[in-house]
Amino acid sequence: MSDAITVGIVGYGNLGRGVETCLAVNPDMRLAGVFTRRDPAALTIASDAPVRHVDDLPSLRGTIDVLILCGGSKDDLPASGPQAAAMFCTVDSFDTHARIPEYFAQMDAAAREGGTTALISAGWDPGMFSIARVYGEALVPDGESHTFWGRGLSQGHSDAIRRVPGVAGGVQYTIPSDEAMARVRRGERPGPSPRECHTRECWVVLEDGADPDAVREAIVTMPAYFADYDTTVTFIDAETLRAEHGAMPHGGFVIRSGATSPSHRQVIEYSLELDSNPEFTAGALVAYARAVYRMHAEGRRGAVTVLDVAPALVSPRSAAELRADLL
Amino acid sequence: MSDAITVGIVGYGNLGRGVETCLAVNPDMRLAGVFTRRDPAALTIASDAPVRHVDDLPSLRGTIDVLILCGGSKDDLPASGPQAAAMFCTVDSFDTHARIPEYFAQMDAAAREGGTTALISAGWDPGMFSIARVYGEALVPDGESHTFWGRGLSQGHSDAIRRVPGVAGGVQYTIPSDEAMARVRRGERPGPSPRECHTRECWVVLEDGADPDAVREAIVTMPAYFADYDTTVTFIDAETLRAEHGAMPHGGFVIRSGATSPSHRQVIEYSLELDSNPEFTAGALVAYARAVYRMHAEGRRGAVTVLDVAPALVSPRSAAELRADLL
Repeated sequence: MSDAITVGIVGYGNLGRGVETCLAVNPDMRLAGVFTRRDPAALTIASDAPVRHVDDLPSLRGTIDVLILCGGSKDDLPASGPQAAAMFCTVDSFDTHARIPEYFAQMDAAAREGGTTALISAGWDPGMFSIARVYGEALVPDGESHTFWGRGLSQGHSDAIRRVPGVAGGVQYTIPSDEAMARVRRGERPGPSPRECHTRECWVVLEDGADPDAVREAIVTMPAYFADYDTTVTFIDAETLRAEHGAMPHGGFVIRSGATSPSHRQVIEYSLELDSNPEFTAGALVAYARAVYRMHAEGRRGAVTVLDVAPALVSPRSAAELRADLL
Repeated sequence: MSDAITVGIVGYGNLGRGVETCLAVNPDMRLAGVFTRRDPAALTIASDAPVRHVDDLPSLRGTIDVLILCGGSKDDLPASGPQAAAMFCTVDSFDTHARIPEYFAQMDAAAREGGTTALISAGWDPGMFSIARVYGEALVPDGESHTFWGRGLSQGHSDAIRRVPGVAGGVQYTIPSDEAMARVRRGERPGPSPRECHTRECWVVLEDGADPDAVREAIVTMPAYFADYDTTVTFIDAETLRAEHGAMPHGGFVIRSGATSPSHRQVIEYSLELDSNPEFTAGALVAYARAVYRMHAEGRRGAVTVLDVAPALVSPRSAAELRADLL
């Protein structure tokens, strides 16, 4: 398809692989190449797209419509995002909520200077959950929004477990409380506290000779991560960890509960149940790459977020088709 | 607030009253007046806004930012919508799905001629459910979307019951099937048939001397409305109808279930549980009136739908605030 949107993938971890898979079910888009910081010759990818070094990107300016940045939010995107946005339209899944304003400002400056459009924080949270929070608050102003995560594997909490002395491996699942969700749906105000909303399940492999009680204590008392939650620690062997805890499920709920008059309660709920967190995020990145391409074509410059993107722009269908079939 | 968005309400039934109530929790908007086809002197409204005849509207051109059209989709909006859109920015809840393309074209022509912006079909279906369908399809292209309505009172089906000879009054509730929803969530393809998705509950008051069996038969065999569904008819007295079936609850579910790779299923769900259908729709009309005002200020002309509106535009908050607090 000669007029397909050409896309480059930067970074080839779980997310990059998910984007590559997803492009196959989006025939209006074409993968122009996978870009890596490693030795391109040493990287085998699933499709037959070229693999190139990220240092080749400046020479490709003008030949790729949108770069999908698949790096992490902690170290990678803050450094490489603005560099990419200065040369190409970009979309990324930057997900450190507290640093979004700062990252937005950096991406906005780079994109304005480069005459590009840079969409940050696509994915599910931030992303689709953010959209649900904005709609909920605007349509039912007199109410409360609560976000519940899980049941799902939290990468950050799993990393925290693995840093505890005596731990050889482990994962952490975040579990939303049915009771807390019921209270939110009923419209209780104030709603449940953070501790009441989630519990945390840790599945841990000990190093040889490690003291289970000491490890458990170190985990459940860890500030910020576990101390404020009801946390259970279950010890398993390395084989069980590999066999039963290798998937990356996640999901959650955004619930808006409010009143439009004294006797009328209204509850809006947006939920996700994801077998694969990175593959869903990849789907969002691809859909928003389409939107970025269109917004840039319409003259938009600088950084944007999913909140700035009209729903129709993420769909491959025409506005008339959407009105006839989906409205 | 001198720079508030000034709004006029056209039509003062359940929906118009809901809009009036809703404006009170949206301090960036101000009610300029309620417009009626009846004798204004005979209409008492809840607020202290002026009540005027719709024939006064032409003389008010330029003094009202957005008209919220609260008429019905069958006879009122197709006639009065284009007239209003030729003079003012408008938002309405036109909900006859099959006639949306035709109505859109009429409103688009009127709005372009008048230099206005006309948003059609705000509400929940069409409206928020349409948005959920577009996002679901775009983010998980390899999947199926199903919409379930209820438990809720269907105005169209209640009207159909009341037209049956021998019926003095009645209401119909649409009930989504838990079993069918479970099948959709599991990703069964093809999904359940229309008959399997909903059942219909009718609560009917007979006229004196009417034959219950004949009435029941006339209802459950009625083409388009009931013949294709499992329908139950329960006879009640007029007092019970008044006491227990006077509310207008509704809601439903949009479920997108699909796969992003052979072993990974992804389920997206958007649901509403509404004590008051018209009050929720009113909340959507008010939020989208804000968006219409902003889009018109940015130069947009012609008809648009909720699919053309970026989420940030429905919120009273600034883009920077939304990024910091809700993204």
